[in-house]
Amino acid sequence: MSTAKKTVTAAVIVIGNEILSGRTRDANLQFLAENLNKLGVQLTEARVIPDIEATIIDAVNEARVRFDYVFTTGGIGPTHDDVTSACIAKAFGVKLIRHPDADALLRSHYKPEDITDARMKMADVPEGAQLLENPVSKAPGYCLENVYVLPGVPRIMQAMFELFKYQLVGGAEVLSRSVASFTPEGKMAAPLSALQDAHPDLEMGSYPFIKDARGGSAIVIRGTDSASLDAAADAVRQIIRDLGGEPFDDDP
Amino acid sequence: MSTAKKTVTAAVIVIGNEILSGRTRDANLQFLAENLNKLGVQLTEARVIPDIEATIIDAVNEARVRFDYVFTTGGIGPTHDDVTSACIAKAFGVKLIRHPDADALLRSHYKPEDITDARMKMADVPEGAQLLENPVSKAPGYCLENVYVLPGVPRIMQAMFELFKYQLVGGAEVLSRSVASFTPEGKMAAPLSALQDAHPDLEMGSYPFIKDARGGSAIVIRGTDSASLDAAADAVRQIIRDLGGEPFDDDP
Repeated sequence: MSTAKKTVTAAVIVIGNEILSGRTRDANLQFLAENLNKLGVQLTEARVIPDIEATIIDAVNEARVRFDYVFTTGGIGPTHDDVTSACIAKAFGVKLIRHPDADALLRSHYKPEDITDARMKMADVPEGAQLLENPVSKAPGYCLENVYVLPGVPRIMQAMFELFKYQLVGGAEVLSRSVASFTPEGKMAAPLSALQDAHPDLEMGSYPFIKDARGGSAIVIRGTDSASLDAAADAVRQIIRDLGGEPFDDDP
Repeated sequence: MSTAKKTVTAAVIVIGNEILSGRTRDANLQFLAENLNKLGVQLTEARVIPDIEATIIDAVNEARVRFDYVFTTGGIGPTHDDVTSACIAKAFGVKLIRHPDADALLRSHYKPEDITDARMKMADVPEGAQLLENPVSKAPGYCLENVYVLPGVPRIMQAMFELFKYQLVGGAEVLSRSVASFTPEGKMAAPLSALQDAHPDLEMGSYPFIKDARGGSAIVIRGTDSASLDAAADAVRQIIRDLGGEPFDDDP
């Protein structure tokens, strides 16, 4: 049996009209999914929502009670469409205040002639928020209780994540095994379903692919117990061989 | 003024553990965002949720009353983790039935020895559903009222979309103009905010970029009225010139 370490969950809220209009392809979701999972934090839901105040407030308030952690990306820059911080403050029912450390940080970063009201807006955070360092462009992110408010630009968000990730308290790390073959998933489905029933502690998924004009599928098994994962992966290899196929480790 | 054609909205529900674990990067959201917008259907929210029955049912039922169209991707294949169709049936309170046309389609597609119970599961749809043709691998998608149920494999989903898109009834098409410059968004923010206030019919967003080690931003203006968009784009160019910059049309 796997250890009884509890499952720690997270939601990501991607805020930005540019993703919903198709102008920009989101790059933050996959980064957060992968890196949270490595820390034992399981991404359980993601939403992409527009820069609309009521929508942001509702999404944040719904997520922060349902999940252990909430990560928002986008909407904390200097322009009029950057409304995330005002919404987070309203979601928590606290004031939006000028944070003295963020104020000092921005004033030392910009030349005096480049300091504008719009830029200084990036020093406004909900009361009680703790700043998160931005090693790329200084304007900080922040966290308030279990909500982490991050910028939308991927390389800034990622650099920030690398610095604050040590504060996150994860549960058991989710490990995975992948077994691929050119045996079509429609042929493996029945024995695979029986195998899933025999391993309720594991989660098995089948992902079809096409390589060199041949169809195949990768069976991905996820769980927290190594021995159980290895046993299930061996069983998948046997299913493939029983169907006349040859398993390999990495899907293309 | 723009025509009074109504706004038609859509939600996308991406169903799949593989996106939330970071194993796979979603490619369907951007395609649907872009192509729905071209049809005058505005993507207003997107969710990524796991293959969990209650979660899928709740997400579908919430979305189908809030939006004109709902598009789900993923979970309609032959394996045990493909639970979408059963969930759609439960969400609508109808039976899951073997569709005779889908049954015939799959039986003519597979060699007799390749017909398995698992594969034939792909002919099961909620009662009342209308099939959507799959020109790539035959197993159909379907729609039920305003909910379109599509496969997760991008090229199959896209091929299906190209065939059924003519059934979608869009509103006014959302057009856009983009004006880029190396003028930092922090300097443009105040006049841009005033311009937004003067054009409540348009939506303006500012998207920073870095090119050749120089920071700049693209101002994207969206709306349904060409003349209004052109006037606003001219005003943005003037704002850039007033700040000593040089506007260009395409951001890098």
